[in-house]
Parts: sequence; C-alpha cells; structure tokens
Amino acid sequence: MNVVGLLAFAVVGSLRGVDADLDLLGVSVLGVMTALGGGVTRDLLVNSVPVALRTTTDVSVALLGVVVGLAIGRVLGDVTDHSFVQVSDAVGLSAFATTGALVAVDAGLSAFGVVVLATVTGVGGGLISDVLLRKVPFVLVEDFYATCAVVGGVVFWLATTAGLDAGVSASVCAAAVFGLRLAAIRYDWELPTV
Amino acid sequence: MNVVGLLAFAVVGSLRGVDADLDLLGVSVLGVMTALGGGVTRDLLVNSVPVALRTTTDVSVALLGVVVGLAIGRVLGDVTDHSFVQVSDAVGLSAFATTGALVAVDAGLSAFGVVVLATVTGVGGGLISDVLLRKVPFVLVEDFYATCAVVGGVVFWLATTAGLDAGVSASVCAAAVFGLRLAAIRYDWELPTV
Amino acid sequence: MNVVGLLAFAVVGSLRGVDADLDLLGVSVLGVMTALGGGVTRDLLVNSVPVALRTTTDVSVALLGVVVGLAIGRVLGDVTDHSFVQVSDAVGLSAFATTGALVAVDAGLSAFGVVVLATVTGVGGGLISDVLLRKVPFVLVEDFYATCAVVGGVVFWLATTAGLDAGVSASVCAAAVFGLRLAAIRYDWELPTV
Repeated sequence: MNVVGLLAFAVVGSLRGVDADLDLLGVSVLGVMTALGGGVTRDLLVNSVPVALRTTTDVSVALLGVVVGLAIGRVLGDVTDHSFVQVSDAVGLSAFATTGALVAVDAGLSAFGVVVLATVTGVGGGLISDVLLRKVPFVLVEDFYATCAVVGGVVFWLATTAGLDAGVSASVCAAAVFGLRLAAIRYDWELPTV
Repeated sequence: MNVVGLLAFAVVGSLRGVDADLDLLGVSVLGVMTALGGGVTRDLLVNSVPVALRTTTDVSVALLGVVVGLAIGRVLGDVTDHSFVQVSDAVGLSAFATTGALVAVDAGLSAFGVVVLATVTGVGGGLISDVLLRKVPFVLVEDFYATCAVVGGVVFWLATTAGLDAGVSASVCAAAVFGLRLAAIRYDWELPTV
Repeated sequence: MNVVGLLAFAVVGSLRGVDADLDLLGVSVLGVMTALGGGVTRDLLVNSVPVALRTTTDVSVALLGVVVGLAIGRVLGDVTDHSFVQVSDAVGLSAFATTGALVAVDAGLSAFGVVVLATVTGVGGGLISDVLLRKVPFVLVEDFYATCAVVGGVVFWLATTAGLDAGVSASVCAAAVFGLRLAAIRYDWELPTV
C-alpha cells in the first residue's frame, strides 16, 4: 500500500515539476518530497522515526517514480490536467490515507485521531508540492479532495470497530477513498462557496 | 486555556477562509489547521504524540469554532480587519503562547526553550494559515505579534523561576500577551525598518 | 560545526529579511528561523527534542548572527547577490549537511537515511526562509544546491563505512559540500531543463 502511494505521488510530483519548467534536480526534489511528505508527517505525528529514513525502500521507490514521471512527461508533454495524472493522484491519496489510518489505529489514537492522521497522510504530499510551487493549495480549493481522505478515515475506524481485521478494513478504506475521488472528478462535485 | 485558544483560532482561520472565497470544506480545513497548527507543532517539538490526535476534544472544539466562524461571517460580511477578529486572534495568541510555555517548563527545557516554544505555539496557527493562503506571513511584517509571545514566554519563565505556581504563572503570562497585543493594535506600535 | 552553521544561516536569513524591507523584528524572526530550521527538522526526524530548545546556545548564536547580519546590511546595502552572502550560505549548507549526516549515523539510519537527513538539514533553513518570503524555493530552481548536500551525505556515509572516525568523516563531508557549492557558483553549473 505504501509502495503504491509512493510511486503514484512521485510520478505526480515530478510531472508537476516538469510543467513548472524546473531543472532535472528540481523535478527530482519535488517528486521525492511529494512522495515522502505525507508518510514522514504521519510518522512524526505518532512519534516514531520516519520509515523513509530507516529503510532504503521508500527513497528508492520515490526515485523510481521520478524516473517514470520524467519518461511520461517526455511522451505526453504538459500533463497536469491529464486524466492519467488525476488517477495517479487519486491512487496516492487513497493509498496514503489508508496507511495513515492503519498507523493511527496501531498507535491507539482516538477516532478523531484516526480521521486526522488519514487526512494529513493523504493530502500531505500534494500540499507540500503546492506550497513549494507557490500554488493555492489544492486541498483548500477542491472540496472533494480532503473530504475523500476524511471519509476513508471514518470508514476505516468503523470497519475496525466493527471487528473486521486490518487487511479488510484497509481494502475497504482504500476503495472508498479512490472511488469517491474518481466520482468527484468525473461528476465535478462541488459545495457552495460560503 | 487550550480550548479557548482552539476556539479563537478556528474562528479566525475560518473567517480568513471566507474572505478568501474558499468553499465550505476549504474554510473548514483552514479553520481546523489554524486552530491545531500551533499545538501540534508544540507537541512535536517536545517529542510527544499531539494531544489533538490522542483525544477527541481538540478536533471537536476546532470544528465548533469553524461553525461559529461561518455564522459570524454570514452576519458581518468581510471581516478580516474587524476588531472582533483582531481580538479573537489576540485571545488565541495569548492562550497558545501560555500553553507553549507550560509544556516547555514541564518538559524541562532551558529558558530560551520556554521562550521559543511559547512563541512557536502562539504564532504557529496564524503562520500556517498565511502560508496556505499565500499571504506574506503576518508574523514577519507585524512587529508586535511574535514579540508579544516572546514577552509572554519571558514572563512565564520569570514567574516560574520566582517560585509562583503554574496556574498563577499561566494567568500572568496570558494577561501579558493579551494586553500587549491589544495595546500594539490600539496604538499602532511599530519599529523602524532596518 | 553546528555553531558555524547557525551563525552563517542567521546572517544570510537576516540579510534576506533586510532586502525584503522587513521591520527589525521580522528580520530577527526570519534570521532565527533560517538558522534553526534545518537543525530542528533534523532532530524531529530522528525523534529527539531539538537541541535548540534544550540548550541556550543555539538561540543565542542565532541572535548573534542576526546582529552581525544587521551590521553588514547597514554597511553593504542590498546584498542578496553579494559573494559574501553566497559564501556564508555555502558555509551554512556544508556545516548543516554534515551535522545531519552525523546525527543520522548516530541514530543508526540506513544509507539513504543518512543522505536524506544530510540534505534536509542542509537545505531546511533556506527553504523555510524562501517559503516565508514567498519566493520560488532556491532548492527547486538551483541544481547544485541540494545536490551538494546529497553528495556530502554520500561522502560521509562512504567515509564512515570505510572505517574513518566521525571527526575525519565530518571534515571530508564539510569540505566536499563547501567546495562543490563554491565551484557550482563560480562556474555556473547547470543541468538541462527536462
């Protein structure tokens, strides 16, 4: 789950970097930070040394994602609004929201803690890349982005509390976030401005 | 003290979101992050799992603050410069600076550690909302904002070192920050540009 | 090593604040945050209470750096592109990249963990000051900035693995980062845009 999210977000982050005309290393830094951002924040919030620093897997996968992103960018050109990028982003969002919920339940957090950690882990990478590229954070202007992760956290908590095992809860959570996000993009769901 | 700060900053953050024409969920995300930002940073810096994730109180209070903020926004219209917002912000600043100083003393930090933690906790929420809304951070351009929290940290440390108990020190610290901030707004205190 | 980095980055940060026409306290906040940013992030990532909060040294040195920066700003005027600032920045980068690598090895991180921590610690201060001043982060647009810290992390890890003691490894790492950064500035090294 973590590997899928890392790969998806590294691809999305590096493609955003290509669109912003960054140099090769700028693209790499942005891709890696987008991929690692959510997970590192998640680990810090439950007070453990980030997995990304303890193993070599995470950084390797993120770098692989950057290479894939560069290859795709070469083929497709400007792709930020391409459906491939939107789907990759939805994959990353659902994978990371799920790992956030898993880690939160393991750490014995409250129900709200589970929801907050799922949300922060899911949206963290995209938020970091937006701040670095000086864009208005997507999470603030797009209604059904953070909401999908919030719903995922609630679903995971309900599933766990209902006695389902972690694997099943995780699958249900990931499916809920991914489906909701795709539906939101497809049908252009919006909430009224206040 | 924590509850008062959460409520005040959630109101301020959500009103800023309304002024920036964010959607309902963008306003909620901004309000919650403004409310929780300082406290989460404070807890991470002393190496504990953030209170906001371990209990349900903090997130509930922040969401309540968002509802209050939305109601006020509906009544008053554009309110970022309204004195109600400035006073709420001063309340949040003083409440969080005080919790920062309290936590720092409990964690056995140095005198400078107490001052830094009071400052970071006090200004953290506003700083996060400024970065997300892509404004020049208030804390960099307004002289007597961070300064008020710095003074609060010094006052708390002096009071504790003088042997006063934590409750009294906290009250003195909160009063100092709040009074200083209101006086700075009222009399438009400024320092010369370098 | 830490003291040298703090001093260098506090000077650079406060000079950037002067160029941005901040008030005296804005300059101080920016200088202190630039100086402490990398080290605090480093300590949080390995899950310890930041040194900057436990001792009085770090904040004192950062404040001293701000005073030095203000004095230099008064003498030289607009100085962001002055070679003195670029050299100070290279000193800070190499000193902090080295402390990051040292802390990572002490914490028993993986090889990638050492490289990531060296990089994050080295570039953290500059990144924070760029975000606060709403500039495009230097680390994203300048190829041979983060790269220098990455190389430093690799060099440190190789030296340690080869059995050199920590002091020697640190010296080699610092020299590599500093030399590479100066060479990159001098010869205007660039990588192609993707």
